[in-house]
Amino acid sequence: MRLLDGKALGETIKGEIAEQVAAMVADGERQPHLAAVLVGNDGASETYVRSKVQSCERVGFASTLLRLPETVSEADLLKTIRNLNDNPDIDGFIVQLPLPRHIRDQAILQAIDPRKDVDGFHPVNVGRMTLGLPSYLPATPYGIMTLLDRYGVETAGAHAVVLGRSAIVGTPMSILLSRNSKPGNCTVTLCHSRSRELPALCRQADILIAALGIPGYVTADMVRDGAAVIDVGITRIPDASRPSGYRLSGDVAFDQVAPKCSWITPVPGGVGPMTVTSLLLNTLQASKRTVSS
Amino acid sequence: MRLLDGKALGETIKGEIAEQVAAMVADGERQPHLAAVLVGNDGASETYVRSKVQSCERVGFASTLLRLPETVSEADLLKTIRNLNDNPDIDGFIVQLPLPRHIRDQAILQAIDPRKDVDGFHPVNVGRMTLGLPSYLPATPYGIMTLLDRYGVETAGAHAVVLGRSAIVGTPMSILLSRNSKPGNCTVTLCHSRSRELPALCRQADILIAALGIPGYVTADMVRDGAAVIDVGITRIPDASRPSGYRLSGDVAFDQVAPKCSWITPVPGGVGPMTVTSLLLNTLQASKRTVSS
Repeated sequence: MRLLDGKALGETIKGEIAEQVAAMVADGERQPHLAAVLVGNDGASETYVRSKVQSCERVGFASTLLRLPETVSEADLLKTIRNLNDNPDIDGFIVQLPLPRHIRDQAILQAIDPRKDVDGFHPVNVGRMTLGLPSYLPATPYGIMTLLDRYGVETAGAHAVVLGRSAIVGTPMSILLSRNSKPGNCTVTLCHSRSRELPALCRQADILIAALGIPGYVTADMVRDGAAVIDVGITRIPDASRPSGYRLSGDVAFDQVAPKCSWITPVPGGVGPMTVTSLLLNTLQASKRTVSS
Repeated sequence: MRLLDGKALGETIKGEIAEQVAAMVADGERQPHLAAVLVGNDGASETYVRSKVQSCERVGFASTLLRLPETVSEADLLKTIRNLNDNPDIDGFIVQLPLPRHIRDQAILQAIDPRKDVDGFHPVNVGRMTLGLPSYLPATPYGIMTLLDRYGVETAGAHAVVLGRSAIVGTPMSILLSRNSKPGNCTVTLCHSRSRELPALCRQADILIAALGIPGYVTADMVRDGAAVIDVGITRIPDASRPSGYRLSGDVAFDQVAPKCSWITPVPGGVGPMTVTSLLLNTLQASKRTVSS
C-alpha cells in the first residue's frame, strides 16, 4: 500500500507554480491575482478562504479578500461580481459557498465571467469540460486527476466507481475519468443514494472514489484487493479531546481498508490540499489567458 | 417483450405539439419557426434535414432551409449564424453536421446563440444539462428519456449501462440517467472502446443503451433476462436487394436479443424517429422562451 500524499504533492506543485511566477515577474509580467468573496462569518468558510489566501502568498500571487456581511442583498453581491468581472487587475475570483439562504447560488455563479471562473462552476466551463474542450476544471476533481497523474496510477481500461453524484465532485469526476485522455479512459460507474447493492458495485472498482460525506462508509469488505481508493469525504466529528473540538473523518474506514489497497489517500492530507492547489493552477492559467470561453 | 415504438410515440407527440401550435395561433401568437443550415450535398444529411423540415410542416411550425455550398468559408457560415441569432422571426436553428473539413465544428456550434440552440450542442446548454438546470437537451438522449418516460420503464435504482461515450449520445445519456429526476436515478456505467470485459458489464444492465455504431454488436449472451434494451446504432449496410441500395442495422442483434428483453427498441422505428420529435419539442420550448441561458 502506498499513500497518495496530497499534502506533499500540493507542496511540490506550489513550488513549481512559485518558480513560474518568479520567472513571469522577472520577465516584467504582472503577478497572477486571485480574489475571493466571503459572505458572512461561517467558521468552515473562514478556514477555507484563509487557506486559499495563504496559498496565494506562498506561490507569489497577489490576493484580495472581499468580505461582505451576512445580510448583503443579492443585488449588491451581483454588483461586487460585476466589478470583479470588469477589473483588469483580477485574473480570477471565487465566491465561497455556501451563501446565505436569501441569495440564489446559481444567480451568483452564472454572473461570474467564465474567463475568470477559476472554481469552474459556471455552466460554460462545466459544458466545456463535458465536451472535452479546454476549461477551468472544478477544484476537487482536478486535484484528484492530478494525484492520479503525478503518482502514475494506471487509469486506462480500469473500472472506476464513483460514490456520490454532486455537481462539484461526483458528476464531474465521472466525466473526467471516462473521457479519452490521460488520466482517463476508465469504465466509470456513478453511484448515489438511490443505487442498489452498493457494496457489490464497489467491489468491482479498480479505482474507488468515495464522495458521499458519510464518515467511515467504505469498509474493507467493499474493496477489491489492489484497488486505488480516493477519499473525498471530510466530515467534522465532535471530539472533546481535540483543541479544535472536532476531528476530520473521511468516507473510508482507513485502518481496515488501507492494507488491501495499491494506493489510498489519507484524510486529512489527501484530496483536501489538492483542491487548493487546483485553484492556484486555474488562476495561473487565467493569468495567461490560455482558456478561452 | 414489448416494443418501445419510437415511430408511434413520435407520431403521438407530434399530434400533441400540433394541438399546442394550433392553440397558440388561435390565440394570435406566431407559429414556432425552426431554421436548418445545410452545407454541401451529403446524402445522409439531405435525408435528415428533409425529415426535420417535413416534421415542422406536420406540426404547424414554420421552417426555413438555408443551403450553402460545400465551399462556403467558415467566415461566411459564421455570418449566416449571426444573422439567424439576430433574426427575431427564428425561434431556434440547427447546423446539420458533419461540416466540411475546412470548417471547425466547435467554432460554428459555439457561435449559435444558446437561446436558439435547439440541438443542445452549445457548451452553455451542455453545462446546464450537467448541472441539472433547464436547458435544451441533445436530441437523441432527450428522445430516449422520452421513450423511457412515456412507456413507463422503471429507472429509479436500476443499473443502466451505456455503450459509447460520444459527446452527443453516450456522455449526455449517462448524465441524464444518473441525475435525481424521473426518469433518472439510475446507477450508470459508461463504457467505451477502452473498456475491458464489456460482455460482463452489459450483463449487469437493467437498462442497456447501445451507442457504439457497430452493427449487431450486442448479442443474446450479453443481455440479462428482463433487461430494457435501447439501440441507438443506425449503420447503413450495403444491400443490393433494396431499392435504396442499403439497409439499416442497429448495434443490437435484435432477433436473438428481443426474446430476453422486457422492452426493446426496433431499428429503424425506435430511437431514430424520437430524435426529430425532440428537436420539435426543443423548438416549441424556444418559441415560448422558457429556457433561459
